[in-house]
Amino acid sequence: MIKIALDVMGGDNCPDSNIDGALLALEKSSDIHMVLCGPEELIKEKLGAKSKVSMDRISIIDASEVITTNEHPVSAIQKKKDSSIVKGIMAVKNNEASAFISAGSSGAVLAGGQLKLGRVKLVQRTPLATIIPTKKGVSLLLDCGANVDARPEWICQFARMGSLYMEKVMGIKNPVVKLVNLGLEDEKGNAFIKSVKPMIEALPNINYQGYIESREIPYGAADVIVTDAWTGNAMLKLYEGTGSVLISTIKSTLMSGFITKIGALLIMPKLKKELKRFDASEYGGAPLLGLKGLIVKCHGNAKAKEICNAILQCESFVNAGINEVLTEYLEEDAKAIDEAMKLFGNA
Amino acid sequence: MIKIALDVMGGDNCPDSNIDGALLALEKSSDIHMVLCGPEELIKEKLGAKSKVSMDRISIIDASEVITTNEHPVSAIQKKKDSSIVKGIMAVKNNEASAFISAGSSGAVLAGGQLKLGRVKLVQRTPLATIIPTKKGVSLLLDCGANVDARPEWICQFARMGSLYMEKVMGIKNPVVKLVNLGLEDEKGNAFIKSVKPMIEALPNINYQGYIESREIPYGAADVIVTDAWTGNAMLKLYEGTGSVLISTIKSTLMSGFITKIGALLIMPKLKKELKRFDASEYGGAPLLGLKGLIVKCHGNAKAKEICNAILQCESFVNAGINEVLTEYLEEDAKAIDEAMKLFGNA
Repeated sequence: MIKIALDVMGGDNCPDSNIDGALLALEKSSDIHMVLCGPEELIKEKLGAKSKVSMDRISIIDASEVITTNEHPVSAIQKKKDSSIVKGIMAVKNNEASAFISAGSSGAVLAGGQLKLGRVKLVQRTPLATIIPTKKGVSLLLDCGANVDARPEWICQFARMGSLYMEKVMGIKNPVVKLVNLGLEDEKGNAFIKSVKPMIEALPNINYQGYIESREIPYGAADVIVTDAWTGNAMLKLYEGTGSVLISTIKSTLMSGFITKIGALLIMPKLKKELKRFDASEYGGAPLLGLKGLIVKCHGNAKAKEICNAILQCESFVNAGINEVLTEYLEEDAKAIDEAMKLFGNA
Repeated sequence: MIKIALDVMGGDNCPDSNIDGALLALEKSSDIHMVLCGPEELIKEKLGAKSKVSMDRISIIDASEVITTNEHPVSAIQKKKDSSIVKGIMAVKNNEASAFISAGSSGAVLAGGQLKLGRVKLVQRTPLATIIPTKKGVSLLLDCGANVDARPEWICQFARMGSLYMEKVMGIKNPVVKLVNLGLEDEKGNAFIKSVKPMIEALPNINYQGYIESREIPYGAADVIVTDAWTGNAMLKLYEGTGSVLISTIKSTLMSGFITKIGALLIMPKLKKELKRFDASEYGGAPLLGLKGLIVKCHGNAKAKEICNAILQCESFVNAGINEVLTEYLEEDAKAIDEAMKLFGNA
């Protein structure tokens, strides 16, 4: 049985979205046990209102406090020891759960993971990795905001962690890894990219295929898109913003008159299905990789379905045993980078 | 009469798109004179095939060579002295034209402008500024790719040049200027942003309103969005890619069956009008600011309408006399930054 902790008080639609998501996941997989973190009374009341809920695979960790998105993340984590986020993360630390999911404050979830859980041996920084929808399917973009002012070695570790995630959790064989740059030519890039290039090219047993221009990202030109947190965060937010503006423009145009409303009736079933592929909530949350245990951040507006998908994603992650093999990979990578840099230095 | 040079051989649709664009602009404005750069024979032949073309406001600079997008920009500029790009830029340098427009190799146009034309006094770097469509109208994003590895002072100059451009060329009164960051809180940002912050806040007589998250860009949350060329280029290309993937998904869905085709007929007139607002070609090209003279880069796939709009944009720029007032602004800005940094240093 894989134990997964869930922040019942996280997100705009809490607590119902979280409780419903947990129940949905319990239905879909018989191998998970949910650890619900939040006010015990409230959780019991909500569960009691549902019919046919068995408590066999549910336990509750009572947490009276809630960290809001307005609070300073680090100080909130330090002060609110009885919050659902801190208690959930501590459950992972104390081996009472293998993973923790929250749709609450991104900053607090990131800071809590980084402060409270140790890193897997040899991991230098823990990137936030986001599954983004593309024309072809999905890609993993990392780092999306956990570590600004990155070092070249971190980027190489992100490439490795991203590749393992897409292969073992998302089931993509030999995932294509690319590095964000201004152009595809060798001489393109800022000083940082030029220092990453010889290192990432040295990684053994990874399907690294060079640079990607951001224009190609929505087309699904890579399975794993690796970049620093500054660039990743700016791109992720722009991607979300652009999609939402375009879709809302289309919707309001369709509803703007009688003729277009009739047209909308005719096209909506198919169009909805197509646009749904661009809806990130279909694919669960954003994992913070490289920690001892797994932390997944869902969108603030996550509904039950996204929470459920994030729970199933955690199950796959734990089953794949990624953290168990990661150190060995990173050791080999570091050796290969060292050798390449010696050659590079002599060249 | 404002003389504007045009690269007849630039872009995927050359030479027709360029010649048609020039003729369209001559029709729309009686105050411009076009200087067409390219093979004289070809240009004469193309103009001869049109009816009613008067040569009164057209001159030709014969250029036998063409720089392709596959060539290394700097070496192409140095070697191909008889190319339409080099000859057009030299026309600006020699005061035979006030501005030069090309839909050809971005790299060559940028490098040519930076190598051949001097900078306006006190300008440290010349940013590439792109007009991007938003839900509200248009914004100016700069730097979009001219100067990687920026210094904080450059960003402040970009803010000033962008603000002047939006006010004097695009007619937006007191344009709102914002700086791209990961979040809106004061403590957010990487080391670079933290060094820009006190400087940009010190600029006098500018409507600087703090940070912008990239998510807000498509909503039109600022008139001038200032960032370093690395981030600007990654965001611009992602913006273009996302828009084009979403719009192509919608179009192919609409054409995918009989019922949806009927629906499409009903909604298309209105939808096309709405989506057109997100079509960058409506707004002309991307100016390279801060040069002695003006260089404007159009999209490689620019059609006559975009070329025409870029020409009219150049006319407004020259009429507004931006380059004549820029040095004075930059001098005041530098003083204000110096004073602020003294205070900042003592704090």
